[in-house]
Amino acid sequence: MKKLINALDDVVKEQLEGMAIAHPDYLKVNFEPKYVYRADAPVTGKVALVSGGGSGHEPMHGGFVGMGMLDGACPGEVFTSPTPDQMYECAKAVNAGAGVLFIVKNYTGDVLNFEMAAELAAAEGIQVQSILIDDDVAVKDSLYTAGRRGVGTTVLAEKIVGAAAEAGYNLEQCADLCRKVNMYGRSMGMAITSCIVPAAGKPTFDLGDDEIEIGIGIHGEPGQKRIKMATADEITEMMAIEILEDKAYTRTVREWAGDESTWDEVDLTDNPFEAGDEVIAFVNSMGGTPVSELYAVYGKLFEVCAAKGVKIVRNLIGPYITSLEMQGMSITLLKADEEILKFWDAPVNTPGLRWGA
Amino acid sequence: MKKLINALDDVVKEQLEGMAIAHPDYLKVNFEPKYVYRADAPVTGKVALVSGGGSGHEPMHGGFVGMGMLDGACPGEVFTSPTPDQMYECAKAVNAGAGVLFIVKNYTGDVLNFEMAAELAAAEGIQVQSILIDDDVAVKDSLYTAGRRGVGTTVLAEKIVGAAAEAGYNLEQCADLCRKVNMYGRSMGMAITSCIVPAAGKPTFDLGDDEIEIGIGIHGEPGQKRIKMATADEITEMMAIEILEDKAYTRTVREWAGDESTWDEVDLTDNPFEAGDEVIAFVNSMGGTPVSELYAVYGKLFEVCAAKGVKIVRNLIGPYITSLEMQGMSITLLKADEEILKFWDAPVNTPGLRWGA
Repeated sequence: MKKLINALDDVVKEQLEGMAIAHPDYLKVNFEPKYVYRADAPVTGKVALVSGGGSGHEPMHGGFVGMGMLDGACPGEVFTSPTPDQMYECAKAVNAGAGVLFIVKNYTGDVLNFEMAAELAAAEGIQVQSILIDDDVAVKDSLYTAGRRGVGTTVLAEKIVGAAAEAGYNLEQCADLCRKVNMYGRSMGMAITSCIVPAAGKPTFDLGDDEIEIGIGIHGEPGQKRIKMATADEITEMMAIEILEDKAYTRTVREWAGDESTWDEVDLTDNPFEAGDEVIAFVNSMGGTPVSELYAVYGKLFEVCAAKGVKIVRNLIGPYITSLEMQGMSITLLKADEEILKFWDAPVNTPGLRWGA
Repeated sequence: MKKLINALDDVVKEQLEGMAIAHPDYLKVNFEPKYVYRADAPVTGKVALVSGGGSGHEPMHGGFVGMGMLDGACPGEVFTSPTPDQMYECAKAVNAGAGVLFIVKNYTGDVLNFEMAAELAAAEGIQVQSILIDDDVAVKDSLYTAGRRGVGTTVLAEKIVGAAAEAGYNLEQCADLCRKVNMYGRSMGMAITSCIVPAAGKPTFDLGDDEIEIGIGIHGEPGQKRIKMATADEITEMMAIEILEDKAYTRTVREWAGDESTWDEVDLTDNPFEAGDEVIAFVNSMGGTPVSELYAVYGKLFEVCAAKGVKIVRNLIGPYITSLEMQGMSITLLKADEEILKFWDAPVNTPGLRWGA
């Protein structure tokens, strides 16, 4: 295994140290327990956004801490959920009294630990709402989770809800918007190569020299199928069609009822894409695929969407939710209404995403 | 070979098509001959900046076209110099009467072709100045060039001189600033893996499972030495010390004498780093190395610089001048004075680099 790391046990710690030194204007890092938080936290009067998950997906989430996006991010070890005490301590550090929104990718460990953190925070009198992102159309259940996995829409939700919080949305409004973004967003990924988790020291899976995996998860979880290497156009069309033609998806999620300190079972149904929709398109590198190749994908994606009457009105193209050095890419489409576009366009100032500020 | 491409002959064309569709607010693409130019070019009263070189280093250069950076970029085939007619036609398209500055990385083909383009443009009455970037301390001469190669400082020069042009610097002032940035900048790269040039279909070079190459060029040109895989700290220290302890470097360059339509031989001497210097640090991924690993490098780089009395006051961390999917990184340090910092901090609005706008 060849990586730019030092001791195996210190991989995450050393990356966080580097971030803290590189970006003191944006963020600070707490090491015991580990979390990244806005340099100016708590921000008076503002709902605080906290996300987190296993490391290895950088810049998500720590790189999205800053004005107009996250207030806090809790990194686990590589591809391993962070612990409830990280989330709880982070929530305490960033809470300004207006409450804390947890944005949680749907992986079993993340879900359980954020639930426990919500209860701990509530016991301290911190208002918490927790919204689940489960946007991956590729597989219904996987090694890591029940239901759909949470992937690319997470980045878009953090940007959009982050801007809304900055604009003065209260906790319930932030939660509603985040839920809408999740219901409007769908993703699918593919891998050209595996990645190597440092602690494992060998590829997570093996792919033949002429094979790719369609529907891969961000931890290298098995996807839908392995196929022979195809052209960028073929791969893009296959994935875009699955996303665009995805059916309404109903699931029951546990949502924290805020003040009442209890969980409610809530039924949610997605809104599939229709001709006439405007969307934000996010073409993401899994880490090792260069942005040049993403542009070939984007060109075809634009064409496939147009043929379905779906118009891409904004885009994000690059490595934002990665799987270490894995080669491959994912596509996320997010149906965009006026509210979503307004907050997408708003200024953001984080190490990983920055415009207008 | 597994890449997200379609026909081998269309790799660059399809990437440019994707860029044009993705970023119409920033740029347009001309296909015969190929160049990328600002959507609002020519910008009245402003000196126009044009760069270019082989494709495969994205986002450089096409991704840096936009407000506060480049007016035009000329992409060759992958790792192949663009032709003089691309540069000449691009210069004509972006020239607003205030002249055109060519920013040229020191590779033999680029240098010759930009020289020819300068002569063609001058014959049309376009004022041209051409500045060479040769910042790579690793090797003096290489397969691709006489003298030092032009690498990471190019990105910083495009940002800084782009802001100066935006602020109203005239052609000579832009050229002077660009020359200073080059003389103040030094870089070194390393590779963990090779990349695969699409037309070749196989790795440019072979590295053992436990080997890395120190001093690699951005086309996979041989570096200084192959060593056994080392820790991030050891590698970073080795490279940082070579950069920081580099001696003054004098070379004779051909510079276009503007109005007079002739070439002058000019002697230039670098200014090595000294204790007390402030620098901009640029830790760059060669493409396949994730940003998380770059942070480990940055942390050590900061420490090594501090031990030499050199203070990092700004940084850029991520994949900006890449070598397709090559794993590895490069370090660039740029001595920063007030003028350089002012233009570094100024707004920039391009697909590949964006802040404050």
